[in-house]
Amino acid sequence: MTDDHIYHVDGELVPASEATVSVDDRGFRYGDAAFETLRAYGGTIFAWDDHVERLERTCEALSLEHGLDASDLRERIDETLAANDLADAYVRLSITRGVQPGKLTPQPEVDPTVVIYAKPLPRGGLEGDPVWDEPATVETVETQRIPDESLPAAAKTHNYLNGILARAELGSDADEALMCDLEGEITEGATSNLFFVRDGVLHTPTTDAPVLPGITRAIVLKLAREDGIAVREGRYEPVDVLEADEAFLTNRTWELRPIATLDGRDVGGGPVTERLSRLYDERVENACYR
Amino acid sequence: MTDDHIYHVDGELVPASEATVSVDDRGFRYGDAAFETLRAYGGTIFAWDDHVERLERTCEALSLEHGLDASDLRERIDETLAANDLADAYVRLSITRGVQPGKLTPQPEVDPTVVIYAKPLPRGGLEGDPVWDEPATVETVETQRIPDESLPAAAKTHNYLNGILARAELGSDADEALMCDLEGEITEGATSNLFFVRDGVLHTPTTDAPVLPGITRAIVLKLAREDGIAVREGRYEPVDVLEADEAFLTNRTWELRPIATLDGRDVGGGPVTERLSRLYDERVENACYR
Repeated sequence: MTDDHIYHVDGELVPASEATVSVDDRGFRYGDAAFETLRAYGGTIFAWDDHVERLERTCEALSLEHGLDASDLRERIDETLAANDLADAYVRLSITRGVQPGKLTPQPEVDPTVVIYAKPLPRGGLEGDPVWDEPATVETVETQRIPDESLPAAAKTHNYLNGILARAELGSDADEALMCDLEGEITEGATSNLFFVRDGVLHTPTTDAPVLPGITRAIVLKLAREDGIAVREGRYEPVDVLEADEAFLTNRTWELRPIATLDGRDVGGGPVTERLSRLYDERVENACYR
Repeated sequence: MTDDHIYHVDGELVPASEATVSVDDRGFRYGDAAFETLRAYGGTIFAWDDHVERLERTCEALSLEHGLDASDLRERIDETLAANDLADAYVRLSITRGVQPGKLTPQPEVDPTVVIYAKPLPRGGLEGDPVWDEPATVETVETQRIPDESLPAAAKTHNYLNGILARAELGSDADEALMCDLEGEITEGATSNLFFVRDGVLHTPTTDAPVLPGITRAIVLKLAREDGIAVREGRYEPVDVLEADEAFLTNRTWELRPIATLDGRDVGGGPVTERLSRLYDERVENACYR
């Protein structure tokens, strides 16, 4: 990033050259940090309360008592958006366990490091365009999702090598890696949740498996139920996606993104995907642009 | 650390206040980094070639082609030791994938960030004293070791939350968390390998399970074989340690550390532990103090 880009680091607005953390920070040493990716639409953070709640759950899973309240965090985000003159933006908020005496065992007294990064993202809502150019090409990978017993999937942390190894397996033009669990059942993409439609029913892998409870995922499920679309959260195999009528991915940035192909075989979006995308845009419109 | 402590960061010797990495560095964002912990005895890095080899294996597992050769890394370590006037020291060497455009998928072109940290540790070898005060109190934990299919255990990386969650489960006076794999068989401690002795045979969990191939572990196995001690690498349950005649942990810092108790039940060291500790000290003496 160029130096006119402003970060929020440890309570201060700083240019990129000063946006650093100590090499002793546990966020750097161990990836011992929680994070959220958010979107600002028209200057408003979308689904803020949901992000606050998930961040809390992550910090609980890590026994990371950072002592910061949501309004403080929100203020830092708003300051970052203002400093960069951004209304429609991608925002990443990280909270690390900070610097502690040289031991792996976490200490209860935490002086957290808060880092906020924001960059422009196009307008969303009814008049917006999606961030992605094309529906996603997706490939299944050998790397398996870390089981909950080893690292809770509900915790969104800086330990992201599992997803990186999955992405590193992809062919050069693929967009997303679809990971299975140790039983060979599909869980999620490296940075997205998966949905598919068969015979008018909307399916998505259950969060009883190691699946991050994506906020966009939850909103899509809610919108579908409100719209009278039958919904099922279950356990599936890649073949279920291949035989689906429609399939799409969700995450904060992409919103809903149809799956063009899985392992080179056509899948595609369709009327349910389009309907849910429209409902999602309306929700963004109502929440942020009115 | 106080500011008279010197770090080696990205090619430069710097005081603690300048020992930082960009918040955009993948080492911070994702824990996307390899590391080694080493010991300098009398100014010499012990088992350097073994560390170089394991670092290479880690970087291969991460597809991290940093382009730095071993002599360059060694030079930086020696500079760090000299700048801090250290002969007997703990050293940590980290190599991150550096800053890359804002995508999770790693790019092949890497501008790595190299960080070296050194602190005093007492003399080792025959005239040295162990780093630890007492034999270790060890507890088994619920957190299970990440399976190889999700993250290769042979890779020593900054994704250390699995070990942190294990340590966070411990009672306040315990030293180490013993982790099992998903099948309930013991693997290793959060920062150490485990050995036990029964009927004169030295046992340790096999690296076919998700167990980091510790360098101290490998040296102890070699010393035992050379000394005519029967050795078995296998799959074990916690009860096997409880019923053992002796048990100890190994890592770079502790060297060999007897296990006082496992889950509150006495285990203790013994003649084989003492013999191997003596042989290890002799090896350090011969390699570094002659």
